[in-house]
Amino acid sequence: MDLNDADSEFEALLRGALPDDAVGPSEPRYLEEPRGRYHGRETVVVRPRSAEEVATVVRLAGQARVGVVAYGGGTGLVGGQISTDGPLPVILSLERMAAIREVYPQENVLICDAGAVLADIQAAADAVERLFPLSLASEGSARIGGNLATNAGGTAVLRYGNARALCLGLEAVLPDGQIWRGLQRLRKDNTGYDLRNLLIGSEGTLGVITAAALKLSPKPAARGTAIFVVPSPKAALDLLALAQAQLGELVSGFELISGQGLAFLAETVPEVRQPFDAAPDWAVLVDVGLVAGLDPQGALEQLFVAAAEAGLALDGVIAQSAQQSDEFWFVREHIPEANKRIGAVISSDVSVPLGAIPEFVELGRAEIAKIGAFRINCFGHVGDGNLHYNVFPLPGGRAADHANQRGDLQRAVHDLAHRLGGSVSAEHGVGRLKVEDLERYGDPAKLSALRAIKAALDPLGIMNPGAVLRN
Amino acid sequence: MDLNDADSEFEALLRGALPDDAVGPSEPRYLEEPRGRYHGRETVVVRPRSAEEVATVVRLAGQARVGVVAYGGGTGLVGGQISTDGPLPVILSLERMAAIREVYPQENVLICDAGAVLADIQAAADAVERLFPLSLASEGSARIGGNLATNAGGTAVLRYGNARALCLGLEAVLPDGQIWRGLQRLRKDNTGYDLRNLLIGSEGTLGVITAAALKLSPKPAARGTAIFVVPSPKAALDLLALAQAQLGELVSGFELISGQGLAFLAETVPEVRQPFDAAPDWAVLVDVGLVAGLDPQGALEQLFVAAAEAGLALDGVIAQSAQQSDEFWFVREHIPEANKRIGAVISSDVSVPLGAIPEFVELGRAEIAKIGAFRINCFGHVGDGNLHYNVFPLPGGRAADHANQRGDLQRAVHDLAHRLGGSVSAEHGVGRLKVEDLERYGDPAKLSALRAIKAALDPLGIMNPGAVLRN
Repeated sequence: MDLNDADSEFEALLRGALPDDAVGPSEPRYLEEPRGRYHGRETVVVRPRSAEEVATVVRLAGQARVGVVAYGGGTGLVGGQISTDGPLPVILSLERMAAIREVYPQENVLICDAGAVLADIQAAADAVERLFPLSLASEGSARIGGNLATNAGGTAVLRYGNARALCLGLEAVLPDGQIWRGLQRLRKDNTGYDLRNLLIGSEGTLGVITAAALKLSPKPAARGTAIFVVPSPKAALDLLALAQAQLGELVSGFELISGQGLAFLAETVPEVRQPFDAAPDWAVLVDVGLVAGLDPQGALEQLFVAAAEAGLALDGVIAQSAQQSDEFWFVREHIPEANKRIGAVISSDVSVPLGAIPEFVELGRAEIAKIGAFRINCFGHVGDGNLHYNVFPLPGGRAADHANQRGDLQRAVHDLAHRLGGSVSAEHGVGRLKVEDLERYGDPAKLSALRAIKAALDPLGIMNPGAVLRN
Repeated sequence: MDLNDADSEFEALLRGALPDDAVGPSEPRYLEEPRGRYHGRETVVVRPRSAEEVATVVRLAGQARVGVVAYGGGTGLVGGQISTDGPLPVILSLERMAAIREVYPQENVLICDAGAVLADIQAAADAVERLFPLSLASEGSARIGGNLATNAGGTAVLRYGNARALCLGLEAVLPDGQIWRGLQRLRKDNTGYDLRNLLIGSEGTLGVITAAALKLSPKPAARGTAIFVVPSPKAALDLLALAQAQLGELVSGFELISGQGLAFLAETVPEVRQPFDAAPDWAVLVDVGLVAGLDPQGALEQLFVAAAEAGLALDGVIAQSAQQSDEFWFVREHIPEANKRIGAVISSDVSVPLGAIPEFVELGRAEIAKIGAFRINCFGHVGDGNLHYNVFPLPGGRAADHANQRGDLQRAVHDLAHRLGGSVSAEHGVGRLKVEDLERYGDPAKLSALRAIKAALDPLGIMNPGAVLRN
């Protein structure tokens, strides 16, 4: 189905149907993304204030056969929010739909507009002594509609699940312009197919999420954080099992940190205080959120003693205060910034079955070595089997000098993850970056079902054309 | 699309393509269901041993345009497994695909065939010191494929979620006969639309689940159970909030029991030992699964003291042993049996937002009274907002005498749940029983999306025709 440009004629249509200030030119911020890989093209931006206005935009786009790219906080890492080629789409920004609509503390539910900033949602939950556990580096600017559209992950998935697991209901505009009013506050509802989870993770290609009913959690009574030096990734996994045997689901976070990552941090962000004098090869950050009656420092000490006895921990520091907890997380959270300053040749977002992590780390190194001499920073949400596997030039080298090896490197990492039963997009989505990967690694039966669903719900192909599935 | 009968010619086709013993006549057990509402018709039953054989059946059915009704444990309560009219379908029983394929304790993952019996899965998890938390009355005969196809709920949803939340990956035969090999053991995978959750809850109308990768949980170190007498459903909710404030997600179950239910139990199942000499109007069963370092009896005593001070608990018994825990659950679990022996005029499976429960209970009574004089047993998973709201004749009356009021009663209960933002099928599904309800109460935009998805994935309409969506 051929689409048309969002040209001045289409812009006039929008102006005729929406309040005057809802339609405008695309400022540069709509055309950039965090990693600088994708550059958008100037086009018309529409900033609706209600689901009804979103529906108007989608209906007009359908009539004019113009693509619609939904835009949240612009923090996506796979180019899902940036259209780079094909007919010019309209950019539909949710920024004016940013309200927390209602909070129901007794129900552990919060309802907000899709444009609500993640940090604002966290704060609104905190204000009623609840937790909205979705937590990621970009939470200060990411908007919940985008978090849901990409099924965002982050650092608390081990305990609380992905964005998908935190959503009870949606309001969304479907590609035909109908508004689905599904803002349920229900824990159980088995009336028909799971449209909610179909829209979650569809990256704007099956509709535009306009509001969400989110699931809050009881706030842990006390939090504890530790960083343990582990002899190997295998030991990290065994340590996770030990931690869960002792503390069950109260283990909230379990993050792998590599010596390479700590070295990058020391080099590029020296103001971040390192937990150990000499950077260990491997460390894990363990975060626990306990109920009343349990002492986090004591529980982490007990874990350390058992881990040390089993040869799973060589050294460790346990935060003695909330401030120190934050400092430990500061280390973990600045590793992506350090990576950025060093300049990666490739970065990856793979997941593998937990048991395959040691093999992945070992074989990954060997596969990379076949291509050339590189530094590897392998880190991330090891409790979820989700590793960010980033490859860097040797000291003094520049990422740009390895541009011609980029494809081979990415392919080697993805092939390996796939071979071990893993995913080439664990938490970032497909966007435009991994459309070919989805075709290469996706199960054929699944792919044909996905294409059939896309054609059925968006027969004109107007929703985020070029993302997830090839046009 | 008109379908054909699964006639002798089609049976011969099956016999030609499958091992001899895989095809046979429909014994009575395939044509009955627990509540005796639906009666199937004699037809051919196929009992494949592999996904490949399932695919063969589905392909042949597509070629011959014969309907396929997948059959698990036969425990569904909404007639999803029983075809009563239209062209005769083939019954595809998963009973010979009942293996636990692999258990990965370190990963908290178990992979099994779709025909594995739920209790066998629980036992296999238990054998490696893990928990598969899906728990429901029919677990001794229900099969996991059916549990997933209906997104079963049960008594541990509060802590662990529905069947949906316990599934990491699926293997399934899609309506075109392709096998989707999606048995992933991943916690994070964002490669394309969520086909897994689309099949989960689709009740065999979008494909046949042949195997599943299930998520296990750490086993709680210690379990505690108590029954508290509460002054009202509102107090039950406040007690839940109190319990979660003290114990967070370690509250595993929170079940409402009504005085009417206890009276039915005393009358019809007198061998079940009652927790209180005089049956209270309302009670809740609280179940907690704690981590090491916490004492369940102590925690429940502390909860009782705080609840009593706040006027939320009038009396209480705390199990002093695992055996007593089981006895308390025995009470709760025999209420459906007592209902059956009394004979309900209608039974319901509604959910409402937690905050709306008191209003639902109060208004429900008033709505029923408008129709006539009845007894009401309102009980269930109050922590999930999921109430089984069953209506009975007055003492001495017979359910059959109220057959003509059944429609009005059901409608009154469903209208009320819907008006309060609830669902008319919380955990049992739509099946054949609630096809009209889905049309009446379903959001129009959602319904048209559901129909488009069904037509896209099953254009011939062979998968469980007549279930969920009208043909």
